[in-house]
Amino acid sequence: MAGSTAESEQRARSNFDVDYVIHFVTPPTESPAEAEAALTQLLTSLTTAGFKTSVRRGRAPASLLIFTRIASLRLLHSHIYRARVQDWLYGVRPAAPPVPSSISSAEGAAALDRYFGQEEPVTEAERLRLAYALITQPKNEGGAGVSPKGPGPVNKFVQAVFPLHDHAFNRRWLAGWSTKYSLEDGDIDEIRDRFGERVAFYFAFLRSYFAFLLFPAAFGFAAWLVLGPCSWVYALVNGLWAVVFFEHWKSKEVDLAVQWGVRGVSRIQRPRAEFRFDREGVDPVTGEVVKLYSPYKRLARQLLQVPFAAACVAALGGLIASCFAIEIFITEVYNGPFKQYLTFLPTILLTIFNPTLTTLLTRLAEKLTKMENYETHDEHTASFVQKVFVINFITSYLGIFLTAFVYVPFAKVLVPYLDIFRLTAQRFTAEGKPLPTKSWELNPGRLTKQVIYFTVTAQIVNLATEVIVPYVKQKLFKTVAKVQSELGEKTESGPASPTFAKDHPDEAKFLRRVRDQAELDEYDVTIDYREMVIQFGYLSLFSVVWPLTACSFLVNNWVEARSDAVKIATQCRRPIPWRADSIGPWLNALGFLSWLGSITSAALVYLFHASDGNTGSILDLARGWALLLSIVFAEHLYLAVQLVVRGVVKRLDSPGLQKEKRERFAMRKQLLERMAAAGGDVFYGGSGSGGGGAAAETIGLVAKEDDRPEQEFWTRQNGVEEAIQVGRALIAETAANKTKTAKS
Amino acid sequence: MAGSTAESEQRARSNFDVDYVIHFVTPPTESPAEAEAALTQLLTSLTTAGFKTSVRRGRAPASLLIFTRIASLRLLHSHIYRARVQDWLYGVRPAAPPVPSSISSAEGAAALDRYFGQEEPVTEAERLRLAYALITQPKNEGGAGVSPKGPGPVNKFVQAVFPLHDHAFNRRWLAGWSTKYSLEDGDIDEIRDRFGERVAFYFAFLRSYFAFLLFPAAFGFAAWLVLGPCSWVYALVNGLWAVVFFEHWKSKEVDLAVQWGVRGVSRIQRPRAEFRFDREGVDPVTGEVVKLYSPYKRLARQLLQVPFAAACVAALGGLIASCFAIEIFITEVYNGPFKQYLTFLPTILLTIFNPTLTTLLTRLAEKLTKMENYETHDEHTASFVQKVFVINFITSYLGIFLTAFVYVPFAKVLVPYLDIFRLTAQRFTAEGKPLPTKSWELNPGRLTKQVIYFTVTAQIVNLATEVIVPYVKQKLFKTVAKVQSELGEKTESGPASPTFAKDHPDEAKFLRRVRDQAELDEYDVTIDYREMVIQFGYLSLFSVVWPLTACSFLVNNWVEARSDAVKIATQCRRPIPWRADSIGPWLNALGFLSWLGSITSAALVYLFHASDGNTGSILDLARGWALLLSIVFAEHLYLAVQLVVRGVVKRLDSPGLQKEKRERFAMRKQLLERMAAAGGDVFYGGSGSGGGGAAAETIGLVAKEDDRPEQEFWTRQNGVEEAIQVGRALIAETAANKTKTAKS
Repeated sequence: MAGSTAESEQRARSNFDVDYVIHFVTPPTESPAEAEAALTQLLTSLTTAGFKTSVRRGRAPASLLIFTRIASLRLLHSHIYRARVQDWLYGVRPAAPPVPSSISSAEGAAALDRYFGQEEPVTEAERLRLAYALITQPKNEGGAGVSPKGPGPVNKFVQAVFPLHDHAFNRRWLAGWSTKYSLEDGDIDEIRDRFGERVAFYFAFLRSYFAFLLFPAAFGFAAWLVLGPCSWVYALVNGLWAVVFFEHWKSKEVDLAVQWGVRGVSRIQRPRAEFRFDREGVDPVTGEVVKLYSPYKRLARQLLQVPFAAACVAALGGLIASCFAIEIFITEVYNGPFKQYLTFLPTILLTIFNPTLTTLLTRLAEKLTKMENYETHDEHTASFVQKVFVINFITSYLGIFLTAFVYVPFAKVLVPYLDIFRLTAQRFTAEGKPLPTKSWELNPGRLTKQVIYFTVTAQIVNLATEVIVPYVKQKLFKTVAKVQSELGEKTESGPASPTFAKDHPDEAKFLRRVRDQAELDEYDVTIDYREMVIQFGYLSLFSVVWPLTACSFLVNNWVEARSDAVKIATQCRRPIPWRADSIGPWLNALGFLSWLGSITSAALVYLFHASDGNTGSILDLARGWALLLSIVFAEHLYLAVQLVVRGVVKRLDSPGLQKEKRERFAMRKQLLERMAAAGGDVFYGGSGSGGGGAAAETIGLVAKEDDRPEQEFWTRQNGVEEAIQVGRALIAETAANKTKTAKS
Repeated sequence: MAGSTAESEQRARSNFDVDYVIHFVTPPTESPAEAEAALTQLLTSLTTAGFKTSVRRGRAPASLLIFTRIASLRLLHSHIYRARVQDWLYGVRPAAPPVPSSISSAEGAAALDRYFGQEEPVTEAERLRLAYALITQPKNEGGAGVSPKGPGPVNKFVQAVFPLHDHAFNRRWLAGWSTKYSLEDGDIDEIRDRFGERVAFYFAFLRSYFAFLLFPAAFGFAAWLVLGPCSWVYALVNGLWAVVFFEHWKSKEVDLAVQWGVRGVSRIQRPRAEFRFDREGVDPVTGEVVKLYSPYKRLARQLLQVPFAAACVAALGGLIASCFAIEIFITEVYNGPFKQYLTFLPTILLTIFNPTLTTLLTRLAEKLTKMENYETHDEHTASFVQKVFVINFITSYLGIFLTAFVYVPFAKVLVPYLDIFRLTAQRFTAEGKPLPTKSWELNPGRLTKQVIYFTVTAQIVNLATEVIVPYVKQKLFKTVAKVQSELGEKTESGPASPTFAKDHPDEAKFLRRVRDQAELDEYDVTIDYREMVIQFGYLSLFSVVWPLTACSFLVNNWVEARSDAVKIATQCRRPIPWRADSIGPWLNALGFLSWLGSITSAALVYLFHASDGNTGSILDLARGWALLLSIVFAEHLYLAVQLVVRGVVKRLDSPGLQKEKRERFAMRKQLLERMAAAGGDVFYGGSGSGGGGAAAETIGLVAKEDDRPEQEFWTRQNGVEEAIQVGRALIAETAANKTKTAKS
């Protein structure tokens, strides 16, 4: 009895070996007959591609869940073997996977089991990645050609293709976070085995970043206590830290890629289905026919990024600058009626227009990236990320830039221009009565307040929207759905109501879980990267104003790592376990922010580090000159230090690279020995030492003498003995001459 | 009769198959008995290592010439094969050399002949490099342990080990230069086959540089006519050119290395014999025992470079600055007696002290580099070159820097300080009588004159000292020697006089040639590189002052290429044909000069581009600010352009890299096919397309079903047909519900 409970418990949690679920939804425009035809075609293609299939009811009225599973272990192994060989051909693996001598024989099969079981076991991520490739690849490449948004009449019905969460693992994983302070190597490897290298890279980055944050947090706290804001010592240490962190991560990234056997995997990335080609050509490396697109056309389209960036600056910059000006006018100049309400005006304007503009520009960025027509997903993502980074850079940092480098230094010059608001406002007030204003004074705490807002308040708000909002939304949706279905049950008693009563009791829980997952969003790791990179930017660019920044980020990231894990495990569908060999385009963004930090920090220190608190105007030429000089100095110091740190980091032997070299060497040596053992091994026999001499003596005698005239030169002294004799005679002669000359 | 003349002619030019000549000279401190013992030992070691030897008289009284030749072709091939395998093990070659199936059999020998004769023929450079390795390697590694300055009692007698010039080739080569305008690819390849990659890289660089110079020469001429000196247009174009040239060469260098099969060869460079080790350890990659030296100790010694650079700046800078000051005082301020003689004083001081100081500092640099104790020749050279570059940078550019950035802008402030010379001079003149001076005026043509001096006069002087002086010296030495020996013949009639009369008539000419070559200097390619890099520096740093600079260099380099060829062929011993995969440390020097050029050009344009000719003082703050701003702007423009150019160059597919990729891919594919043919090929059979589906159907039936509870999920719908049926039923049901709901 107890055993059967345990079994049913286990069954309730089991995923029934399902590899992927295809969410099949009939759009309202399609007739049931077409849906039936598409379903038949879909199931047939899947079966041909090597999948077992099983169909169940979906939650939405016109939706089905198609469960798929690779039909046999042998088939899976054959595909995995082929993929590994391809990796080797493209130089991703140093060693070729071993060829089992004969598969039909019993030993061959045993060798295979050993290979896939122990030597190079198949991880879940590998299995899922392969299954996804089989499902989505075109039919002429051996796949089923099934993918959401893919071509063909069937794919209209495919809403999503997703793997199922492993609840036992997720629970263990999330429980692990609560017991430990930070991730360990083993944890990252486990993430990699489950969610693929792309997600694992994010967590590895988060871990490195978190560990590195400890230093600026501690130092920042000390600086806050002892040095105060805008100290050049803090700026120097912070810049050095940024360089070391960046260079360390660059080498760590390569190291991880090598350890995970994915170095150079970006070269064989999956092609984009949307890619349109101009003509076909022969790949000069592999000799295969490939689809080509003119790089000049693409370059021409890439150049559109320049007007795009200009548009971003104009639109977002204009919005932020206007709101900024209005805010200053209202809080610091205006003193008339409704002031308490009017102070909210800029916030309201920002809240309305900022997301609208951002969404519009992001859509524009998407369109531009599509126009650039990249061949691979990686290139596409990189180009898109670049554009998104421009947008985010402006929305995140422009406000602080304006305060630090426009408002404070040029305020006295600019504030009179705010009169335009007064004149505008004047129109709406009683005529003749001047608008009440107060004389303007510089608000010195403004910059610090703004930095604190962005590095503490905004981070908390962000975290909340990221974690709590989806959770509430999910709960709410479920409640609504429940109430609806309950209402439905009460009002109707047709065959539609007991939809889920028809589920087999053994599967009921499982199917409910799957239906839940089908409703979740896709996980996008770039959003998480963006958050961290923008955060790093605050630290690098502005933390000199408020040295506690890193402390705030340390706390934030402790929660962030956990909330990201929760997000992946419970609020998103399980991600397709893609491979990656780096954090991709974000690396350049990090480098850029780190470099820019050297400039802004120097400027901030120069402008705001004044013991009397009065910063004066940089319109004074001497001050302007000194500011420029200190920026130039700081930047070149930064570049020089970067060069040195890069040199040192390069010298440090990374374990991953060393492992790769060792493997490559061992592989070659082994191959050589095998070849030598098969063929004649005169040339590569022996250990090399002394072999030369011995070979010379044996071979020297065997070699036949030729009889060209040149030969005479060599036969005049035949053998070493004669040469020695002649030589000694010559020396003796010289010696005799010498004594003779000395005597005479 | 005619045939015999031709034969004797040929014999006169022949090198009698000699690989290396060892110049054996008994130092005056050693007794003849010891010399005899050393000779015996030396000849025995050479024979053991696989050489034929033959001894002849040298020109100097106590000197012998030992001719060596690898004893048999088979031995040579075996060594070359081993070296090629080593290259492959270290990843220099993409493909392993083929293993002849059986050497003892006739087919095996034929296959070998084909391999070394046609498939991958042995070049002269390869043969000579190998022979040199065999001569110089320690005995326990299979060599003869013979090298000048090497350890052991024998090597005291070894003055040089050198290969012989191939006079037929040299004549052809030099004749070729006179008929063509520039080198062709084939010529570079021939240089490589004869003198090795290290020398070939120099000529390839020279060729690229010369071709690239055509553009700034033409543009500079136009700019000289139209724009005049210090035009910002010229500065911009010149900077852009420097970036393009640098990035092009960086990629060209890799391309050449790949084409020549030497990419990564710097990793397996020859160890320095002088290297002293701390302890022995195991190489983590190859597993061999290697000698190790603490990197921290080395780092500590490398840090001495900082005080060394400071010392160079202080010593050379002080000298140049003082001479500069004296010169200005005498030519532009002083107006007293002996002026016509005194104007030569700074030149005399420079001529005396500059070479002295340079020699001293170069020796110091050598000592420092030795202290740093590098393991390989390449690292040693790189470190030495770095130090030499500092010295050369100061001696070459400091004078112009002083004129441009100290003399002109600050002259009004500084000239009064020259009073110190007046006071000093006053002491030596009649008391009470003031030293006659003229009122000082800025000499605006000074900078241009100085640039023209360095870029035209100094280049010509340099070329002359490089070509003509050694030629004259050589002629002079020969005459002296001839006169001496003639005198000797007349005064003495002992056995010493007819030394060369004893030469066999067939060999007489040959031996005379060898004796001549033994007296020549070693060829050092770094001197030639240095000259070109320093020249590039003038172009990048100062050519904006005198746009004709590139024209002068074009002419100079046309001669330079030829004179370098003459130098190698006639004025130096034939170089050991070392391999190299780049121009080494000079690349960084080029990059540095190109970057610095962006700064100096901007500053020069700002300071000297004034239509009224009056440049004013930069002590004026507004001018100083603008100067700094324009420098910062120019530098960042430079860095941005570099980034773009680098990106574009990287995208261009270099033929060499593509060839390498293709070879690597082909090699792997072939290997795979061979392995698959040998073993079972179930996994890698078929072309991949469609294989999946077929495999699924066959294997799917074979796979045995398991009976875990999870299995039930899959057996509820048995086979596709049932799944399709269930699915269609579900769709129909939904459709029925819909119509029902619509009706009710």
